[in-house]
Amino acid sequence: MICTSLIGCSSVEDMQGENLNSNSKTPEITEIKNVILLIGDGMGTTYTTAYRYYKDNLTTSIMEKTSFDPYLVGLQTTYSFDEDHNITDSAAAATSLSSGIKTYNGAIGVDMHEDDVKTVLEVAKELGKSTGLIATSTINHATPAAFGAHNKSRKNYSEIANDYYDDLVNGKHKVDILLGGGRNEFVRKDRNLVEEFKKDGYAFVTTRKELLENQNEQVIGLFAEGALPKMIDRSKETPSLEDMTLAALKQLNKNENGFFLMVEGSQIDWGGHDNDIVSVMSEMEDFEKAFKAAIDFAIKDKHTLVIATGDHETGGLSVGSGSDYNWNFEIIKQVTRTPSFIANKLIAQADVEKTLKKYIKFSLTREEVNKVIDKVNSNPAGTVKTIASIINKRSNTGWTTNGHTGQDVPVYAFGPGSALFAGLTDNTETAKNIIKMLNLSH
Amino acid sequence: MICTSLIGCSSVEDMQGENLNSNSKTPEITEIKNVILLIGDGMGTTYTTAYRYYKDNLTTSIMEKTSFDPYLVGLQTTYSFDEDHNITDSAAAATSLSSGIKTYNGAIGVDMHEDDVKTVLEVAKELGKSTGLIATSTINHATPAAFGAHNKSRKNYSEIANDYYDDLVNGKHKVDILLGGGRNEFVRKDRNLVEEFKKDGYAFVTTRKELLENQNEQVIGLFAEGALPKMIDRSKETPSLEDMTLAALKQLNKNENGFFLMVEGSQIDWGGHDNDIVSVMSEMEDFEKAFKAAIDFAIKDKHTLVIATGDHETGGLSVGSGSDYNWNFEIIKQVTRTPSFIANKLIAQADVEKTLKKYIKFSLTREEVNKVIDKVNSNPAGTVKTIASIINKRSNTGWTTNGHTGQDVPVYAFGPGSALFAGLTDNTETAKNIIKMLNLSH
Repeated sequence: MICTSLIGCSSVEDMQGENLNSNSKTPEITEIKNVILLIGDGMGTTYTTAYRYYKDNLTTSIMEKTSFDPYLVGLQTTYSFDEDHNITDSAAAATSLSSGIKTYNGAIGVDMHEDDVKTVLEVAKELGKSTGLIATSTINHATPAAFGAHNKSRKNYSEIANDYYDDLVNGKHKVDILLGGGRNEFVRKDRNLVEEFKKDGYAFVTTRKELLENQNEQVIGLFAEGALPKMIDRSKETPSLEDMTLAALKQLNKNENGFFLMVEGSQIDWGGHDNDIVSVMSEMEDFEKAFKAAIDFAIKDKHTLVIATGDHETGGLSVGSGSDYNWNFEIIKQVTRTPSFIANKLIAQADVEKTLKKYIKFSLTREEVNKVIDKVNSNPAGTVKTIASIINKRSNTGWTTNGHTGQDVPVYAFGPGSALFAGLTDNTETAKNIIKMLNLSH
Repeated sequence: MICTSLIGCSSVEDMQGENLNSNSKTPEITEIKNVILLIGDGMGTTYTTAYRYYKDNLTTSIMEKTSFDPYLVGLQTTYSFDEDHNITDSAAAATSLSSGIKTYNGAIGVDMHEDDVKTVLEVAKELGKSTGLIATSTINHATPAAFGAHNKSRKNYSEIANDYYDDLVNGKHKVDILLGGGRNEFVRKDRNLVEEFKKDGYAFVTTRKELLENQNEQVIGLFAEGALPKMIDRSKETPSLEDMTLAALKQLNKNENGFFLMVEGSQIDWGGHDNDIVSVMSEMEDFEKAFKAAIDFAIKDKHTLVIATGDHETGGLSVGSGSDYNWNFEIIKQVTRTPSFIANKLIAQADVEKTLKKYIKFSLTREEVNKVIDKVNSNPAGTVKTIASIINKRSNTGWTTNGHTGQDVPVYAFGPGSALFAGLTDNTETAKNIIKMLNLSH
């Protein structure tokens, strides 16, 4: 076995052979060229554990590892410097991950004084690298925004989208590749940013097919008016997070100076906010495939550092609840669309029970069916929650909040410099270490 | 900075200077003599995060690290091979940690076929080392039992206590030091194990003072009839987990062949089962101090491997709940005894409100006080739960179950061989790696 990461070494012998007794200058440090940072929004350690249970091959007695597991190097603290909250939001956490400073909840690439702070994406661009931002939310949502924009509030969506075009680094646009949702955010009454980008040589794509066929090194891909559908609800028109990651890597890798790419699994968090375990597992799978694509690229490339982490935990998810000592994840697999998708179908169609059974393959009790029918008739907007609750109860999935929690999040790393991210780190150290490695790559 | 653990290195320079470019045979591997394994029962990553919040120095803007944090090396999977449960109990998890095999819930040092499996403590004794078991529960409870006994069921408490005396390794008692609760388990109508141990040369101590004065290398210390009181409820008569750890180390270290010691923070788990955050923080502090004592010993000794981990998570604890994005841990600090202790006082005394305010320093609402008074009068046994619920609500502490959950637990390691425990490991690997290091120490 070749032990590519200090942390990944599985035995004393590996460590001795590959690293500890080595005289040569370690490739960990000298051969860095590219950095890929993947952020699972809301992805606490309960999420990565739950996903391992969910993907378990039940024909074997052991629990198989996920694509993340071999690359675990530590945990990360997530708290912000908010005066009123000791639990972070995605904007403050993303600003810490992008710029290495602590700030208030809602801040986008600005510090406690609302002053702009330089981001890892901007550092990469200054060094002549190509850059990309990918999300399954609108691409001007908090997490990607904190890498490519500066604003006192995450809610100023138009200003954030404008920043992607208007903010220049050495006279050039700072983000070469923007892929996600949000056509309505870029094609507005006051301004058509898509036309402005196109005028400056960017390709514009809106479907999976167009994305895969794109040969342009600068591209803006907006695959929905708002956020993308969740993975299990998507049509073939919509690219997966893996599709977007691979398409971006193909273009970014053309730059001999290397690249920085941020990939967000945006809606893991939204599943958490809705206490909706079906959406969480869907989006974890989407994120895992993108992570695997990044790792495969890095293994082949040998000069790419890959880091994956969460920005905070959402929902207070627990793997099991009640008194059974059993998390019934098989229940979740028998739901073929998200509760939100199913609720919309139920509201639109006459035969609620028939429609319900079309998407939920486990046997519903009469009481459960009636509860859904009652909700569709009395308060259609509450149907999503009713469906999610039934699945939580049947699967013994526990939640404690519709907001965020403060628990540490897992950190995965591979490639040159990966040892820097080991142990317990703070989210600000992630940015600092990326900047350290970017500077070493020059 | 001297980087004693690969994982603990905080910069590339540290790693280069201390390890990567070293030609010498690394002390990590050759100089092992002693192993200390500390188990925080129920201690998931939410517990270690919550404890960091709880201990935060609010006069600084950053969140200070706990004694555990610098030694984090990874996470551990905890599932058992139980046919009916995919979430482990403490017996199965402890058997995995002690013997390197997966087994069914309830198993004490036996495999799926109820056959005995050799434990790390027995391996250590075979190698001529001294051995010790320490717990704040009765010392024949599931976790210590899985290291020093073999039984098809954790519930066979008398048989387990008998094993500590009757099971010999090379004609000698296998556990030299037994410290914890459980006088009633050892001095029974059918058998007086204390007298039997004493006859064979063991010292017997029942108070903190006697423990600290003991000079005997073999000692049985039983400081309560059942379990010890929780840390914040203890009198000066009762030793802390740190006291017991230091007293054991003093004796164990007399053996030039080295030692194996297991230290359990038993009642972290019990706080979790009761959804009682006051008890959890009390027992986390007790456990942290014992961990710190072990680390301090190892730093000085240079030949001791220290590992600390959980066996599973209990309660589905979350750091924050509700919509505040704030975990109000200051509330918890204002409760000076456990809800159980307070409830007993309330039931015994006439003026409930006055007694309540004696132990709870934050301002209770009229409604909260009335709720407690009603419970004391109508259903005294439910008073503990009522008090714990008030504290949970006021502190925004979330729980999802009175049982265990499946989430990964943190792993901390220091000293020779600590790198073996890095990344994502399974609890069976912990035992296998300890055995590997014990064999290297011979």
